[in-house]
Amino acid sequence: MKLHGYFRSSASYRVRIALNLKGLSAEHLSHHLRRGEQHAPGYLAINPQGLVPTLEGDGGSVLTQSLAIIEWLDETHPAPPLLPKEPLRRALVRAFAQVVACDIHPVQNLKVLARLRELGLAEDKVTEWAAWANREGLMACEKLIASEAGPFCFGDTPTLADLCLVPQLANARRFGVDVAAFPRLLKAESAAKALKAFAEAAPERQADAE
Amino acid sequence: MKLHGYFRSSASYRVRIALNLKGLSAEHLSHHLRRGEQHAPGYLAINPQGLVPTLEGDGGSVLTQSLAIIEWLDETHPAPPLLPKEPLRRALVRAFAQVVACDIHPVQNLKVLARLRELGLAEDKVTEWAAWANREGLMACEKLIASEAGPFCFGDTPTLADLCLVPQLANARRFGVDVAAFPRLLKAESAAKALKAFAEAAPERQADAE
Repeated sequence: MKLHGYFRSSASYRVRIALNLKGLSAEHLSHHLRRGEQHAPGYLAINPQGLVPTLEGDGGSVLTQSLAIIEWLDETHPAPPLLPKEPLRRALVRAFAQVVACDIHPVQNLKVLARLRELGLAEDKVTEWAAWANREGLMACEKLIASEAGPFCFGDTPTLADLCLVPQLANARRFGVDVAAFPRLLKAESAAKALKAFAEAAPERQADAE
Repeated sequence: MKLHGYFRSSASYRVRIALNLKGLSAEHLSHHLRRGEQHAPGYLAINPQGLVPTLEGDGGSVLTQSLAIIEWLDETHPAPPLLPKEPLRRALVRAFAQVVACDIHPVQNLKVLARLRELGLAEDKVTEWAAWANREGLMACEKLIASEAGPFCFGDTPTLADLCLVPQLANARRFGVDVAAFPRLLKAESAAKALKAFAEAAPERQADAE
C-alpha cells in the first residue's frame, strides 16, 4: 500500500496510527502542503480534492477521506478492532470522531486559514479563528466522554475516537489552546501516547518532518 | 424516537431521508437555529455542541452527528441498506459523504458564517465564502462519481452518498452556485428526488418551514 500524506497533516496522522495498530506497512509518499504539492496534476488525478491522505491499495484501489480509509482498514483487517461491536457504542465513537473530523479540523485546516488571510485577516486573528474551532469542538468532546471510565476515549482499548483525538490535540496546542481545560481528553491522550502505534505515527517521527 | 432538527439544517435533512427510507417514524422537535434555540441549556445537556440533529432513541439513547446517526440506523435497521456490502465500495460511498459532511458543510454552516460576520466581513463576501466551499467540494464530488453509471451516486439504489448530496445541492443553490457544472451530481439528485423518501424530507415539506 502507498499512503500519500504529510507529516503535519492531522488527517494523515490518524491513518498512520490506524496502520500501525493493525500492523500494516505502507510506503509513505509526502506532499508538502505549504508548497502546494497536493495540487500537482498527478496527485489531483487520484484525489480530486487535492487533500491528504490518500491510500492506494495494492490492487489499484484508491481511497480518500481519512475516516473512510480507517473504516476500510477496520473492515478488511479486523484485528484489533477500532470500533466496538455494539451499534450504540459504535455510534458514540463515530460521533466523537466526527466532531473532530467534521466540525473542528476542516474549519481550521490550511486551506481555510489561507482563505481567511486572502480576505485580509491579520495573522493573530487567523490563529484566534483556529484556536476557536479547536476550543469549541474539544469542549464538546470532553463532555461526550465525561462519564466514560477509559482510560481511552471509549474503554480500555483505542478506537477511532482516539485516532482523531490525539492529532487534534497536537493542533490545538499549536494554535495556543489551553488544553488543561480538557482533563478527560488528556487522560485518553496519555493512554494512547504510551502505545508504540501512536508514538511512531507522530509528526516529528516522520521522514518528511521539518 | 425523537429527532431534534431544523427544517433548513442540511444535516437534519440527511437524517430525515434515512428515517423515511427505512420506513421509521420519529417525533420531530424543531430548534430554530437563527433564534439560537440550539443553545438552550436543556438542549446542550443532550448535545454539547449545540448543533442539530440529535436522535433520541426509545431506550433513552442519545445520538449526535448525522453520519453516525445514519450508520446506526443502517446497522440496527438493515433494510434497505444505505451502504454497499463490499468494503471498497463502502469506502467510496463514505468518502463521498465525508467530502460533503466534513469539507463542505461545516465550512459554510450558520456558526462559521456568523463568525465571519463578527470579523467584519461584508454580506456579499460571506455568501462568496459559502459558495466557494460548496463549489470546491461539489467539484470533487462530481469527479469521484464521474465513472459511476448511476443513476444514483453509487449504483441503482440510494446510499449515504445521495443522502448527503441532495441537501448539499439545496445549500449550494441557496448560495448562488451554478450547479449546472455538475451534471453527474444532478443526475443522482434527480433520481433521488423522484423517491417519496427524499421528497417528504425536503425542508419546505417540514412543519417548521418558514
